[in-house]
Amino acid sequence: MSKRDFIATDEWHDEEILALLDLAGRLKRGEASGSLAGKVLAMVFFDPSLRTRTSFEVGMVMHGGHAVCLEPGKGSWAIETRPGAVMDGDTVEHLIEAARVLSRYGQALGVRSFPKAATWAEARRDEVVRGFAQHATVPVINLESARRHPCQGLADALTLREKLGPTAGRRFVLTWAWHPKALPTAVPASAAINAARLGMEVVVAHPPGFELDPDDMATIRTVASRAGGSVQVVYDIDQAIAGADAVYAKSWGSLAHFGNATAESAYRAPHRRWQVDEARMATTAGGRGIFMHCLPVRRNVVVTDGVLDGPWSVVVDQAENRLHAQRALLLELLGERP
Amino acid sequence: MSKRDFIATDEWHDEEILALLDLAGRLKRGEASGSLAGKVLAMVFFDPSLRTRTSFEVGMVMHGGHAVCLEPGKGSWAIETRPGAVMDGDTVEHLIEAARVLSRYGQALGVRSFPKAATWAEARRDEVVRGFAQHATVPVINLESARRHPCQGLADALTLREKLGPTAGRRFVLTWAWHPKALPTAVPASAAINAARLGMEVVVAHPPGFELDPDDMATIRTVASRAGGSVQVVYDIDQAIAGADAVYAKSWGSLAHFGNATAESAYRAPHRRWQVDEARMATTAGGRGIFMHCLPVRRNVVVTDGVLDGPWSVVVDQAENRLHAQRALLLELLGERP
Amino acid sequence: MSKRDFIATDEWHDEEILALLDLAGRLKRGEASGSLAGKVLAMVFFDPSLRTRTSFEVGMVMHGGHAVCLEPGKGSWAIETRPGAVMDGDTVEHLIEAARVLSRYGQALGVRSFPKAATWAEARRDEVVRGFAQHATVPVINLESARRHPCQGLADALTLREKLGPTAGRRFVLTWAWHPKALPTAVPASAAINAARLGMEVVVAHPPGFELDPDDMATIRTVASRAGGSVQVVYDIDQAIAGADAVYAKSWGSLAHFGNATAESAYRAPHRRWQVDEARMATTAGGRGIFMHCLPVRRNVVVTDGVLDGPWSVVVDQAENRLHAQRALLLELLGERP
Repeated sequence: MSKRDFIATDEWHDEEILALLDLAGRLKRGEASGSLAGKVLAMVFFDPSLRTRTSFEVGMVMHGGHAVCLEPGKGSWAIETRPGAVMDGDTVEHLIEAARVLSRYGQALGVRSFPKAATWAEARRDEVVRGFAQHATVPVINLESARRHPCQGLADALTLREKLGPTAGRRFVLTWAWHPKALPTAVPASAAINAARLGMEVVVAHPPGFELDPDDMATIRTVASRAGGSVQVVYDIDQAIAGADAVYAKSWGSLAHFGNATAESAYRAPHRRWQVDEARMATTAGGRGIFMHCLPVRRNVVVTDGVLDGPWSVVVDQAENRLHAQRALLLELLGERP
Repeated sequence: MSKRDFIATDEWHDEEILALLDLAGRLKRGEASGSLAGKVLAMVFFDPSLRTRTSFEVGMVMHGGHAVCLEPGKGSWAIETRPGAVMDGDTVEHLIEAARVLSRYGQALGVRSFPKAATWAEARRDEVVRGFAQHATVPVINLESARRHPCQGLADALTLREKLGPTAGRRFVLTWAWHPKALPTAVPASAAINAARLGMEVVVAHPPGFELDPDDMATIRTVASRAGGSVQVVYDIDQAIAGADAVYAKSWGSLAHFGNATAESAYRAPHRRWQVDEARMATTAGGRGIFMHCLPVRRNVVVTDGVLDGPWSVVVDQAENRLHAQRALLLELLGERP
Repeated sequence: MSKRDFIATDEWHDEEILALLDLAGRLKRGEASGSLAGKVLAMVFFDPSLRTRTSFEVGMVMHGGHAVCLEPGKGSWAIETRPGAVMDGDTVEHLIEAARVLSRYGQALGVRSFPKAATWAEARRDEVVRGFAQHATVPVINLESARRHPCQGLADALTLREKLGPTAGRRFVLTWAWHPKALPTAVPASAAINAARLGMEVVVAHPPGFELDPDDMATIRTVASRAGGSVQVVYDIDQAIAGADAVYAKSWGSLAHFGNATAESAYRAPHRRWQVDEARMATTAGGRGIFMHCLPVRRNVVVTDGVLDGPWSVVVDQAENRLHAQRALLLELLGERP
């Protein structure tokens, strides 16, 4: 029996993703429906969540289904993720059993696992979510891994289409921002891939030394090329934002310093001026470019109160669109549609 | 679009609260019904809960709805509550975004946040629940803040009406009790306000120095005055309980020593004899006054096993009435009723 | 009003347990149905869970009901379990109130509480789950206590009947295995009791000094005798497994050293060769005996990857059968069946 996983939007065909966006829009407008009656989504959170957990739970319930939420090491058992491990340490259950057993209780699994490996070479393999996908016998949905946050990417694309109308050739700026911690690159990679798929002019802005993973950059370029868009990298936040139709702010850590928090923090320290504020938003296209962020966001660090509470911000719409994008995904994977 | 919050019963009209109590009674007896189908309550617990969480979740489900439960700083992100904060510390998400986003996923929010500020002057502003109410676009229900526990207040009033029949002029004694920690005043203030609304003779008993907030005392007196009841403060537990129709035991900390645990503890220490026991309950009206507590209660500290397991105790009925009072509230805020 | 608790399968009549297994099989095959509409199961987990929590929640939902999950000391209040305690320490709520209150919110309670007492003499009384059963006014289901894991026992028996067909006289080997911690004896006792009820030849294998509780061994023998089976104890893993139809691996601590972790660990240390591997499974009946474990299992400690991923393992079926066995139990306790 074949099954379909949703680990990365770039592992699905462009047309499939665009069809999901269309369905999501129709679901949001009440123009489509579908049933998840009798279906259970089992979510495994190795890391915290507000939007993901709530929007998936509500999405299942809206269509007559149900979601279960487990937290390994808290209410649930500490899970071993290394293949072949001799488990005489702190972990109590292997992901192999967790994946196989939850496949008997639910019709799909969701897994969130932020990067915890010592090196980027290891973290970038996304072994936790891919291990669940390998051993589960039902579809596995990536709720954010080291490399991808595909549900966020769907919601981002849905928001861009809603807010900008035709997206081809419009300027999408993904800008790095300073943040007190070295965050993962899953969201920026996913956002850029999904903007690229819409045929946008994708600008990736960050200080030198904060390059995204080369494979992810190659994926962004490939997707852009297929969609008739473009990709460029700039090292200046002001140059990047000028004329933008959409500014997507996000912090991430220097992959070159991955796993070395002290060195990475020192390397990141000089760039505190990489922040999105009202003055910078005033330089966007017509002064009316939209401001995007995946949330949670650190106010007055990554972006000012003035931007978040001003006319530019669509961050709450992005969060709402998580719900509708995921309803579309769940109906595609599990649903019965009229 | 206007929305209705439920932060304090004293911010609603007396007739509205009395109507909720009537509806709660009818729902409990199976004489009323209503639908919450397609409705989601999103609850945010900054502090623990047994009754509140369970009774709201069950109440939503009983009427076809659903409840989601989030715990900031545990499974969910640590939430910043200070307006204008530069978030470069431990908090990851601002309550502004949490309120706005959860308003897109649910049709009502619930928030529990015990006092954590350094001073009573700050804590008494109830900025967390009021911040959620300000930024949410759906009704916000106070699940217990520094100042009020309005759902408990409703359940207390419902219980008084059930157990005493006509309440006007009956003696309601709110008595302080010793407890190893300095607890909040939300429950005693809410209980007294709601007894006052029933036209009872309200007696507030505590050792000198354990006065409730003056504004809350003024509210209790105002509500009592409107309802034709009375309020007095006594400083002796035996004098207070003698002749009582209802004895409501509750501990709270000295507001004069708020934020100084060591000093407050020493100030509280001499009053360990403020405990409700069988001998004191024998002095109630006809020896048959009811014993009330919001739960959780520390057995053999605040009240003896003999009282809790004896004929006086209605604490489990109070807890059950949380469910019915909240069903009435949810139907009023969200429901469709035949 | 009478109520029925499910603390141990050996406290129900054999025919009742066999009828539950029959119903579970029919439910699994889609040959039976039943409604839990309007029913709520309130689960209290003093200890972690993956299977128990998920399978009960899904089981309730499959029949139109709902489950609530509480964790005392985490999201819920720390619970006192000692009768008569003067609660001036760390616990905030007594199990008496928790049991009474949850009986007003749900139609059944589930309780998981692993042994935490200082001595086996105290732990073996199972006072937490029995305290809940005493004070609840609705059925209480044991979700694993110091002495029993009756839902696991049901699932084990269901699996044995599914995999072996006629069970009378077949060789069921419960073998101790080394593990880095001293685990409880609830699962091995429950597994052996339930295999005995099927009329099997029960072999209990462990190193000297790891005897199960004498009362539990007596119960296994009594049940076996009623069912026409047999019980023997052997002190050699190879002798035990040879010719087995089913090998059930499980670690447990030496009861003689209960509560003394250092001494128990040293006493357990020499027995690391008590592990189930492919060579040992090859000596089972026809080389095709089934391998059983309750999960979670420590891979390459209790049992090798080769056995778990090989043709012998039925551990995932056992886990799935938790769901169906519990559906039968819930329908028996709460349900309306056509």
